[in-house]
Amino acid sequence: MYKVKVFVTLKENVLDPQGHAVKNSLHSLNYSNVSDVRIGKFMELVIDNSDQDIDEAVKEICEKLLANTVIEDYRYEIEEVIS
Amino acid sequence: MYKVKVFVTLKENVLDPQGHAVKNSLHSLNYSNVSDVRIGKFMELVIDNSDQDIDEAVKEICEKLLANTVIEDYRYEIEEVIS
Repeated sequence: MYKVKVFVTLKENVLDPQGHAVKNSLHSLNYSNVSDVRIGKFMELVIDNSDQDIDEAVKEICEKLLANTVIEDYRYEIEEVIS
Repeated sequence: MYKVKVFVTLKENVLDPQGHAVKNSLHSLNYSNVSDVRIGKFMELVIDNSDQDIDEAVKEICEKLLANTVIEDYRYEIEEVIS
């Protein structure tokens, strides 16, 4: 069994209106020293062992479903759990 | 200047309909060995130096705005950037 953590973030040159809104809210709350906020997704998957290579499987899953590779980058960490 | 990474995840006993939908989609794509998916948020903040202790500031920001502590847990990593 594997525990996989996937981080999906907007590419550097893509506007992040949600992050912008959070930054403005923080300024309203008097945290004026916050100069940038970017918001992404964090996903935890539990994957059972199979014939397919885990690294390859996770890459496919990210490309096909979890990330929109036109505007998003992704990275992942795979941890094997011995039960 | 500090780069702060914040991870917000649903508490263990809170239902995650979005994660459930992603799991079902993965099963439709023939990744039937994916047994659990949980979806959370990943936020990157850039915070300038100030009088307030950075650890205290980040904790306040998470509690007040970034996480709903009734149903979500959060953790953060602070990295100091020397420019």
